Amino acid sequence: MGDADRTATGGEADSGEVPFRRVAIVGMGLMGGSLGLALRERRPGIHVTGIVRRAEQAEDCVALGASHAATLDMAAGVADADLVVLSTPVRTLIAQIPEVARHMRPGAVLTDMGSTKAAIMRAMAQVPWPIQPVGGHPMCGKEVAGLEAADATLYEGAPWPLTPLERTDPAATAGVKALVGAVGGRPVMLEADRHDRLVAAISHLPYLLAVALVEVADEVADEDELVWSLAASGFRDTSRLAASDLSMMLDILATNRRYVAAMATRLHRQLGRLVVALEAGDAAEATDLRPRLTEARDRRIAWGLRKKA
Amino acid sequence: MGDADRTATGGEADSGEVPFRRVAIVGMGLMGGSLGLALRERRPGIHVTGIVRRAEQAEDCVALGASHAATLDMAAGVADADLVVLSTPVRTLIAQIPEVARHMRPGAVLTDMGSTKAAIMRAMAQVPWPIQPVGGHPMCGKEVAGLEAADATLYEGAPWPLTPLERTDPAATAGVKALVGAVGGRPVMLEADRHDRLVAAISHLPYLLAVALVEVADEVADEDELVWSLAASGFRDTSRLAASDLSMMLDILATNRRYVAAMATRLHRQLGRLVVALEAGDAAEATDLRPRLTEARDRRIAWGLRKKA
Repeated sequence: MGDADRTATGGEADSGEVPFRRVAIVGMGLMGGSLGLALRERRPGIHVTGIVRRAEQAEDCVALGASHAATLDMAAGVADADLVVLSTPVRTLIAQIPEVARHMRPGAVLTDMGSTKAAIMRAMAQVPWPIQPVGGHPMCGKEVAGLEAADATLYEGAPWPLTPLERTDPAATAGVKALVGAVGGRPVMLEADRHDRLVAAISHLPYLLAVALVEVADEVADEDELVWSLAASGFRDTSRLAASDLSMMLDILATNRRYVAAMATRLHRQLGRLVVALEAGDAAEATDLRPRLTEARDRRIAWGLRKKA
Repeated sequence: MGDADRTATGGEADSGEVPFRRVAIVGMGLMGGSLGLALRERRPGIHVTGIVRRAEQAEDCVALGASHAATLDMAAGVADADLVVLSTPVRTLIAQIPEVARHMRPGAVLTDMGSTKAAIMRAMAQVPWPIQPVGGHPMCGKEVAGLEAADATLYEGAPWPLTPLERTDPAATAGVKALVGAVGGRPVMLEADRHDRLVAAISHLPYLLAVALVEVADEVADEDELVWSLAASGFRDTSRLAASDLSMMLDILATNRRYVAAMATRLHRQLGRLVVALEAGDAAEATDLRPRLTEARDRRIAWGLRKKA
């Protein structure tokens, strides 16, 4: 399709030319800033405008090359965009949808980078017909937030679910797919509800586990402070997500409560079963513990190999 | 103390000259092999013998420079050692203690690299008096096992609990501390039972959590296979330990059952409380969820900064 420098990472990345000449990104933190940097590097013909809340941020966007222009004026910033990308925390983003849509030109495409999709798509379903909504969720990140951490390579190889509405023009969806492919992401088409259920298991549940693990370590530390100085690489990796950005995580949990609670309940049950097997001792080791640990190990190794492939 | 090239990593690493001229390492996998490589690099005057189970392993030890000599003969291998280091999985190691001790010279020091300590120290308490037992546990590792993965820098900065018996000669303990410091580890003196309780929280519990997380993802995959292709870096890190070496982990769980079960029960309770807060919705967010997530985040960030310092 003439898209010669597109990163070939499998998935549904066969996406053709990016049909947008002007892109407006609302929120220039880690995610929005990285998208701006990646577009400017890989698609220099596309004009990028950043919409931010403070004057210093606007200066930084332009100085860092994350956007050609930057403004605090939402109406002016999105008015002539062919594509508007919402890149603020989920509940902020939902609140911004009506205002943004009001100022977009008819036929322009509206996408987002929020980590849950059903609540966002309900809000997008309310925007007037000529606007074309295509929900999106780049599945990548960093421990540090903010424009300073933005990175043009952040999206390389990242799964990027897209959740258009039934009413969305297929050409708008194809355009967003092309944009995702252009910055190295792997577009995955799925329904918003299905997305939320799956990410509850593999993204939001790991966060809750990390929090609960830190809480247990902290409880133990109240009894014996040495615990923190013994914690090593296993604790580091398993607890890493507990350090995630709080506004982002609270918004995610609030808009995906039902599925996150369901997945946490499943984990609660599995952990309970592991404790029973453990307490049953040697007899249970051969019949229950070993087969379970073996299967989990094999699944995890197979997943790791598949990710590398 | 003349120990000029010792890595300064804090802790109790002020440990002086290594008093052992001949060191025998039983089991030359990742841990034993890395110790051999580190000693040969940093203390070339110390003679290292590897004791292994297969002739090819013996050849590999010498070829890779992990030991000067290697043998399949336990009696001959440990006979003239000043220090014997047991570096096999915990239950194997416990079974080897009587035989190894029988062949050691009077006054020689016996240490180990096992991940639990109380069961090992009970076995070490049975060895005849002239042998000096000092339990040890270097807290580091890699996802891959085996001599091929051995690395002279593996122990740099690693917390390394030491658990001598009451009867152990303080000079023997000081010698093992010096050895730990020589390969870059941070010796931490503590009792075996206290060790097992602490590592249950920050090392063995994270393993069980990783297993339970993979089990939940696998359950979800039975209903929707797409889950594996969406799993990204958060899942990768939180589930990493599920791929750990199975013999090693089964031995750890079997010899630390009580504390691991107790810590898993604590986590079970914390996760249950998180689910309740989540299901209670917006009202609970401000009063319960946000303060808990904030505290966990702050603890995790503070721990990360302390580790880097």
